[in-house]
Amino acid sequence: MADTMAHFLEKYNRNFGVGLKTEHFQGRQVFEVIAEAHKPEARDYFQEEGFFANIPVMPGSAEVVKALAERYEVFITTAAMDVPCSFTPKFDWLQRHFPFIPTSNIVFCGDKSIIAADYLVDDNTRHLSKFRGEGIIYTAPHNVNEKRFRRVNDWEDVRVLFLS
Amino acid sequence: MADTMAHFLEKYNRNFGVGLKTEHFQGRQVFEVIAEAHKPEARDYFQEEGFFANIPVMPGSAEVVKALAERYEVFITTAAMDVPCSFTPKFDWLQRHFPFIPTSNIVFCGDKSIIAADYLVDDNTRHLSKFRGEGIIYTAPHNVNEKRFRRVNDWEDVRVLFLS
Repeated sequence: MADTMAHFLEKYNRNFGVGLKTEHFQGRQVFEVIAEAHKPEARDYFQEEGFFANIPVMPGSAEVVKALAERYEVFITTAAMDVPCSFTPKFDWLQRHFPFIPTSNIVFCGDKSIIAADYLVDDNTRHLSKFRGEGIIYTAPHNVNEKRFRRVNDWEDVRVLFLS
Repeated sequence: MADTMAHFLEKYNRNFGVGLKTEHFQGRQVFEVIAEAHKPEARDYFQEEGFFANIPVMPGSAEVVKALAERYEVFITTAAMDVPCSFTPKFDWLQRHFPFIPTSNIVFCGDKSIIAADYLVDDNTRHLSKFRGEGIIYTAPHNVNEKRFRRVNDWEDVRVLFLS
């Protein structure tokens, strides 16, 4: 739903005067790719409340999540526990961009094995592999080589999978 | 784990110069009992971050939760979504009083039907009745007449139920 990668790269490139693109991260985590000397500063981005407030919405996500919520019981689960300063900006971001999701259906957690649902759409293989229902992998540069889960490349794929 | 009722009454009694005790709330919700004229101000207590930071720990809860966590996988699930200002103080409170619970095992939610666990110990019948595992009711003044769930009256009862 949130294009955290685009937001990170935009800030990182501006900060360090470089031109990294998502193509540079195929099959690798962000912190495996960026320069060693930049890591402390780049890690600090995630400790700034403003970073989360301004993340752009993925194209199509609001429309597709709205349509899903009309047909299914949709919960938004976000791994917020590693970054306590993200609680309020993440909550406000969801209220602003996904106002049709009731706040009772927002879950902040750390370990998604605690989530009781039929499907989990997530880009993080750690969460997908611990989830009890069917994990659906949402393509991100770091997970392109993962083969264990059904895959969606964008929100249109999510729409086709669940609504067509 | 948190004695919110004791904390509320202490603040309420001081604020309004009255002497309400938990006995006055048997089988009733707090806002069914307190004076109409006091309600707006009393509701605002829950919008103050400081209110949550200073809630006392229930007697025995730290010891028993620690012992449970040594034998079981324990998650702390707290209905935080109605009160967004409580996110950070609740998280900090748990870290301070229950440091042996990893942050990955803390869940902020609104609707506990999303929780995948075998047992839920809770004082709120709304959460217990939607939970998919076995709900165990933790006695609080408002729930004394509830008969649908196995009941624990204090943390010693929790210890006996799960550890003896």
